[in-house]
Amino acid sequence: MTERTLILLRHGQSTWNEKNLFTGWVDVRLTAKGAEEAKRGGELLRERDLLPDVLYTSLLTRAIQTANIALDAADRAWIPVTRSWRLNERHYGDLQGKDKAETLEQYGEEQFMLWRRSFDTPPPAIADDNEFSQAGDLRYAGIDGDVPATECLKDVIDRFLPYWESTITKDLEAGRTVLVTAHGNSLRALVKHLDGISDDDIAALNIPTGIPLVYRLGDDNMPLGPGEYLDPEAAAAGAAAVASQGSKH
Amino acid sequence: MTERTLILLRHGQSTWNEKNLFTGWVDVRLTAKGAEEAKRGGELLRERDLLPDVLYTSLLTRAIQTANIALDAADRAWIPVTRSWRLNERHYGDLQGKDKAETLEQYGEEQFMLWRRSFDTPPPAIADDNEFSQAGDLRYAGIDGDVPATECLKDVIDRFLPYWESTITKDLEAGRTVLVTAHGNSLRALVKHLDGISDDDIAALNIPTGIPLVYRLGDDNMPLGPGEYLDPEAAAAGAAAVASQGSKH
Repeated sequence: MTERTLILLRHGQSTWNEKNLFTGWVDVRLTAKGAEEAKRGGELLRERDLLPDVLYTSLLTRAIQTANIALDAADRAWIPVTRSWRLNERHYGDLQGKDKAETLEQYGEEQFMLWRRSFDTPPPAIADDNEFSQAGDLRYAGIDGDVPATECLKDVIDRFLPYWESTITKDLEAGRTVLVTAHGNSLRALVKHLDGISDDDIAALNIPTGIPLVYRLGDDNMPLGPGEYLDPEAAAAGAAAVASQGSKH
Repeated sequence: MTERTLILLRHGQSTWNEKNLFTGWVDVRLTAKGAEEAKRGGELLRERDLLPDVLYTSLLTRAIQTANIALDAADRAWIPVTRSWRLNERHYGDLQGKDKAETLEQYGEEQFMLWRRSFDTPPPAIADDNEFSQAGDLRYAGIDGDVPATECLKDVIDRFLPYWESTITKDLEAGRTVLVTAHGNSLRALVKHLDGISDDDIAALNIPTGIPLVYRLGDDNMPLGPGEYLDPEAAAAGAAAVASQGSKH
């Protein structure tokens, strides 16, 4: 059996992370700090000689910037790249563009955490004429069906896992080291599948930004052991930081 | 008939342009000035609402960086991208890594210009064990046959035009605006074909860096009129600067 290597990388700080706004499919950019995180991610790949043969990204600029910067830092800018909306962040519905702390204050912690972490309860749908809606965005013309107006984590799993099975695993099976550069919730969807995490327990999983998470997979494209963060200390600190988002203290 | 839109973009200053070395397939990076040129190129696309639907690049980092920066500046980082060695710069053979001014001094202007501008006389082949050879570079494992050890412009045409016909034109025929981000000589190969320039006259054609060159093509994928630089004044100045490379005055 040949081990297959999968590397997951969550994009770093975006302008809306910095402002503490719900982002979802709104196409904001990395901050200078986010770009630094991406560069460090690429340097970790190079230091560990974990060099991707192919790249998958979402259609969102912050994940694409992260991939471009990280691959450039790892001297692998030239590998083939495939982008898909199926790797996009969870669509945050009507919350997109809203302040997280204000939303917490307005709706209370229970409702806030339900929207953020419920497995199958999406936020209210965003109206097509809301300035933060993606209805009519030509980059999603290829979606088979309507552009989402809101999503829960289960919806993300339902759109991402078929793509994982049909497309990404084919590269792994061909012996290629695969880098997936994506978002908090699309990566949670994949990690839930890989690590067999229950619908309840996935709420507590926080993936830190900018730190490559490496899985060695077997012939069934399932992990041979736990995923490994290339910088475990920074990963633990990063996960704690993500968990505290929305709170003001 | 629907017009088809093709945009050509030559990468800007690289570290070896700055040092006045023959580069070819050596994988050097953009300088800060080169990155600025790429950004300006992307801004010109956005200002003129010339938004690419698909991107083609070579396998060389300086062209890929140029595309990433330009598309980011044009808010089109998310378009599909295809990379091919067939868009690479001309392989400069044994000249790769050599100083242009020293080479001019050592071999004289006639030999120097023959190597730089002859249609069908390649420089001497580079040895496989030369530090600037690409023999054994895994990124070229997909080449059908040997990795080139030197090329003249005719060789570049022979590898690029079949790809143009078989692949790039298919996107144009599907109504997509195509951006090709590549190199002085691979773009000269394509422009020679599009503008019907003779083997002799192509020697005098210099494509400036960082300025999008836009062609409107007809049903036969040939130009309906002359290509248009989006910044004609800068293009004229840039072409003159390229023409004077190698000279010390």
